[in-house]
Amino acid sequence: MNDIPALARGCAVLGTGGGGDVRTGSLAAIRAIREYGPVPLLRLDDLPGDALILPLSGIGAPTVSHEMIHGEDEPKRIAEEAERIFGRPPSAIMSSEIGGANGVAPVAWAAQLGVPLLDADGMGRAFPEVQMVSMYVAGIPADLVIMSDVAGNVVTIRPVDGLWSERLARAVCVAAGSHALMADYVLTADRARGAVIEGTVTRALEVGRATEGAADPLGALRDRLGATRLITGKLTDVERRTTGGFVRGTATIEGTGDDRGRRLTVELQNENLVAVEDGRTRAMVPDLITVVDTETAAAVQTEGLRYGQRVTVLAWPCDPLWRTPKGLETAGPRAFGYDLDYVPVEELTHG
Amino acid sequence: MNDIPALARGCAVLGTGGGGDVRTGSLAAIRAIREYGPVPLLRLDDLPGDALILPLSGIGAPTVSHEMIHGEDEPKRIAEEAERIFGRPPSAIMSSEIGGANGVAPVAWAAQLGVPLLDADGMGRAFPEVQMVSMYVAGIPADLVIMSDVAGNVVTIRPVDGLWSERLARAVCVAAGSHALMADYVLTADRARGAVIEGTVTRALEVGRATEGAADPLGALRDRLGATRLITGKLTDVERRTTGGFVRGTATIEGTGDDRGRRLTVELQNENLVAVEDGRTRAMVPDLITVVDTETAAAVQTEGLRYGQRVTVLAWPCDPLWRTPKGLETAGPRAFGYDLDYVPVEELTHG
Repeated sequence: MNDIPALARGCAVLGTGGGGDVRTGSLAAIRAIREYGPVPLLRLDDLPGDALILPLSGIGAPTVSHEMIHGEDEPKRIAEEAERIFGRPPSAIMSSEIGGANGVAPVAWAAQLGVPLLDADGMGRAFPEVQMVSMYVAGIPADLVIMSDVAGNVVTIRPVDGLWSERLARAVCVAAGSHALMADYVLTADRARGAVIEGTVTRALEVGRATEGAADPLGALRDRLGATRLITGKLTDVERRTTGGFVRGTATIEGTGDDRGRRLTVELQNENLVAVEDGRTRAMVPDLITVVDTETAAAVQTEGLRYGQRVTVLAWPCDPLWRTPKGLETAGPRAFGYDLDYVPVEELTHG
Repeated sequence: MNDIPALARGCAVLGTGGGGDVRTGSLAAIRAIREYGPVPLLRLDDLPGDALILPLSGIGAPTVSHEMIHGEDEPKRIAEEAERIFGRPPSAIMSSEIGGANGVAPVAWAAQLGVPLLDADGMGRAFPEVQMVSMYVAGIPADLVIMSDVAGNVVTIRPVDGLWSERLARAVCVAAGSHALMADYVLTADRARGAVIEGTVTRALEVGRATEGAADPLGALRDRLGATRLITGKLTDVERRTTGGFVRGTATIEGTGDDRGRRLTVELQNENLVAVEDGRTRAMVPDLITVVDTETAAAVQTEGLRYGQRVTVLAWPCDPLWRTPKGLETAGPRAFGYDLDYVPVEELTHG
């Protein structure tokens, strides 16, 4: 679990534009491994049933987070608070969100704490809101959130539900300078079974390695993801604004080559959420939509979108958990304010 | 400690316009006493040194709080969280802020929890911000805040200092609908000595009783407070706005009778902070400035200021703690953004 460059590339692809800048997470991970040694990757079955899993993620706006480096104290302060509450220290760190920086940075947090990293996460991708995690969809009560910020504050939230969890955590995050580290849904291994998405660290590594030395990186990435190519072209318009700790905006891609004359717009709220062409939705959340550099197949994150970039937009199916009624209610298009009934990307592509 | 009407009158006077609507606190206190029985009033010396004192207060904008009634669950949830953290239940409730609703409502909270009320508070008046308490001025680390809201959420903050405490608690309060119940600076009796203002519940009761059946209520109140009359007149202008959980504004009083031709403006931020006449400051925070009904001597709180009211403005000295350098740094005029050097009200009046 020490191939950080491959992990970072994979996490950026799974981040669908968001989840924070992977470069920040990579630097922290490389530095922490150098100082504390390599981080073992564990499967859920490797842990005793009562072992405590600490799902950690950064919360905040990507445009802020990529300028802020987590200190070493945040994971320690959160682990101490968890131990104070549960009477035992965490046995493993889990990424709450494999997409973006939050997929890579947990390697640093695990190294600093001297505990293994679990090969699982709570999304299988990136999502902007605290309650948009598999643990919530699995019906585990969102009864505890522990946050720590760069100033050293620790905030523990015992929310009545996942929506309050999001509302209060977001308010604390904004007050703390639009960035904080957070443990959400602290779980025993027994509780985690069926409530986390397993194997996603391995998947991110495989996605990151797929393009390594490939003659056709874009093709290799498509194959590995099982993705559909929505368009290849040029970024002709990027509109972004940061409000209330979120980045919202639109990216417009005009087709080139075989796609000349076509035009795709991608709506984003931290992550890429909906892709539209000629008034027809081509892909929508919770399916994954990622903008990649056409030549290198490296993911372009929201904050890296620039006029004139040569890009390809890929879309592929989300984890089946997100296609359940509770999954769609939590993170389907309507959860983001879009008046759209969810249609899987496979059907939209063939339709 | 069951003369709630007198306590409420006194707390309103000490509230200098703010601290929340005393009527809400009174109703809750009367109801709780009826249901759970009378609340004993304790002096600090009555408690063993390691007894846990839970200082409680409502936090929020007065214009919101007077429409919201605390449930019975908030104090219980906070007491439970305190017991979880300290390993023993609280032995007494303390009002963090004797001024306004926060001076009266603790009677209800104590009744609901079945514990005595401490004859002390953290201000001797009302202040708008979390760090403006005697415990902060006494140098006690602001290392724990426990909050609960009407929805049932519990938030525990371990801030690095008092300013972060205010910033994070305010953010949580606004997210919770601009009102929450809060325990700040949970103390043992030993630690509380010299760090709380003792005797203030008794003082509020005495102030409230001073006008009872008096032939000259205004004179009786002035004598009891040792207050200066700044003006008697008519409210001719009231400007108020609510922003970020605070009420800010200005009240203008034009003199009548002997004061005809004079004009006083009172600047307020939840509380009345500065009284100015002809460009001369007549009284300023942390000294107390209260607008009272000229006939009944009942305090008029910020949200009750109405055009045409016949009022008298009284001002009197704050607790000596607030006149120390740390006290003035914390809650002197500059702490509220006024470019004024503090001059005690006694000197301004004789100057």
